Amino acid sequence: MILVTNDDGIYAPGIKALYQELAHLEEVTVVAPDTEQSAVGHSISLSNPLRVNKITLNDGIPGWSVTGTPADCVKIALAELLPERPDLVVSGINLGPNVGINVLYSGTVSAATEATILGLKAMAFSLNTYMNADFATAARLARRVLERFRDWPGWQQKVCLNVNLPALPENQIKGIKIVHQDTGPLVEHFERRIDPRERVYYWLAEINKRRDLDLDTDYGALQAGYITVTPICFDLTHYPTLEALRRFNGDLPDKN
Amino acid sequence: MILVTNDDGIYAPGIKALYQELAHLEEVTVVAPDTEQSAVGHSISLSNPLRVNKITLNDGIPGWSVTGTPADCVKIALAELLPERPDLVVSGINLGPNVGINVLYSGTVSAATEATILGLKAMAFSLNTYMNADFATAARLARRVLERFRDWPGWQQKVCLNVNLPALPENQIKGIKIVHQDTGPLVEHFERRIDPRERVYYWLAEINKRRDLDLDTDYGALQAGYITVTPICFDLTHYPTLEALRRFNGDLPDKN
Repeated sequence: MILVTNDDGIYAPGIKALYQELAHLEEVTVVAPDTEQSAVGHSISLSNPLRVNKITLNDGIPGWSVTGTPADCVKIALAELLPERPDLVVSGINLGPNVGINVLYSGTVSAATEATILGLKAMAFSLNTYMNADFATAARLARRVLERFRDWPGWQQKVCLNVNLPALPENQIKGIKIVHQDTGPLVEHFERRIDPRERVYYWLAEINKRRDLDLDTDYGALQAGYITVTPICFDLTHYPTLEALRRFNGDLPDKN
Repeated sequence: MILVTNDDGIYAPGIKALYQELAHLEEVTVVAPDTEQSAVGHSISLSNPLRVNKITLNDGIPGWSVTGTPADCVKIALAELLPERPDLVVSGINLGPNVGINVLYSGTVSAATEATILGLKAMAFSLNTYMNADFATAARLARRVLERFRDWPGWQQKVCLNVNLPALPENQIKGIKIVHQDTGPLVEHFERRIDPRERVYYWLAEINKRRDLDLDTDYGALQAGYITVTPICFDLTHYPTLEALRRFNGDLPDKN
C-alpha cells in the first residue's frame, strides 16, 4: 500500500493526479492537510490537537484530511489511520520546485523525511512551475521515477529521495539525473517599498535565480530540463567537522 | 559585531540574557521576530512583505523587530539593517532543547543555518527546559562555549554549531561534549480524546523520550548533563547514496 500526502492540501490538483496515476500500481491511501501548508518547513503540531476527517474527493477518491502539517499527516496515518504500515510514502506533487536551500523549508520534503524517520521508504515530488501546471504529465513522470527506483537494492534506511520534475512536454525532458542539493549562495535582494500610508516595507525578490548552472546540482539540472533525483538524509551532522571538533575539544585523544 | 536573533521573539528573556552577556565581548545588534516563531522550521516569507521597527527593549537594549521568521531576520539584517557584515550570528537562547529530529524544525537553528548560507559563522543556543528557565546561567554557559569555539581554525564554511545547554546549576554540568544529531526512532504516540461536543481529537504525546541514552548523540549527552555541540550543515544530500544511485542510473559509467 502507498500512502500519499502533500503540503498543498488534500484538495490540490497535484495530489489528485498522483493518486490517479499510482492507483494503477497498487492500493493508495491519501492522508493530507485540510489546508495549504506550503513553506511550513518540518513542523509538527505540539500545542494544538489534530482532528481527522474521512472524506471523499471529487472523483470518488477516498482520503483523510488532517488539521495539521504534512509531517503530522504521516505520523497520524501510521499511528491511527492505516490498517497496516505502507510500503512507500509519496509526497506531492508540489506546485513549485524544491531544490537547493528550499529543501530545508519544504513541507513536501518534510513529509518524506518524517516517513524516513519512522522507518519507511519515501519519495517527494515537486513540479518546476508555479502556474499552468500540467499535473497529469507530471504524475506520469513521477510514476516512472517511482517504478525505476523504489526497488533499488542500494536504498538505505534514513535516506529518502527528493525528486523534481521539469514543467516541460515529455519529449523535451532530457532524462533522469542523480544530483546533490545545490548549496550555492542565493542571488536575492529585498525590494524597499512605500505603502499607501507612507510606511516602509520590504519584499524578498529574485530568490534563487542564478546565471551559472551546475548540472551536478538539483537546481542546475532541473533548470536544464532534467528530472532530478537527490538522496537526502535527516541527519544534519557534518561528520568531517565532528571528528575535528572532538580532537579540538579533547573528546577523543589525538593519537599522533 | 555580533548579530543576535532568536525564534521566541524579541521580547523573550532568552535573547535579553544573551545580549547582556555578549555585550561584554563586543558590539551586539539584536534583530529578531516581533512575535514568537517557535516550530516554524526554516521558513522564509515570500508571500508577505516584511516590516521592520527600530525599538528599545526594557533595559535600554537597542534592536530591530521584524514581522517575519528567524531566517527572515538574518536575511534582512544583512541586506538592509546592519552597517557591516557581522563577525558572528548567535541565535537563542531558545526555551526548550533542539536535539535529534527537532533540529529539522527548529526556528532557532534555522537562523544559524540561514547565516551560514549567507557565508557567516553562526551558533544556535537552546536550553533544556520549558519552565523556570535560568537564562542568566544559560547565557554565561553560552558565552563560554562561544569563546571556546568561535576562533577554532578548523571551522568550515557551510557548517554552523548547534549548542544545547543543560538546565542545571553550573557545578552539576559535566562538561562540553561534541556529538552528532540523534537519529533514533522517536517513542511517541497520539492520545485519542473526546471533546465536550463528543468529537474525537488526537494529541501528540511522549515525544522524544527514550530509555537508552547514547552519549555520542545530542539527545543522550544533553540528558546526561553535558553541554552538547553539534556541527551541522544545510546540505541534506546523502553522498554515499548519491554515488551508488549514479551508478544505478547510469550517470557515471561503472569502470569495473
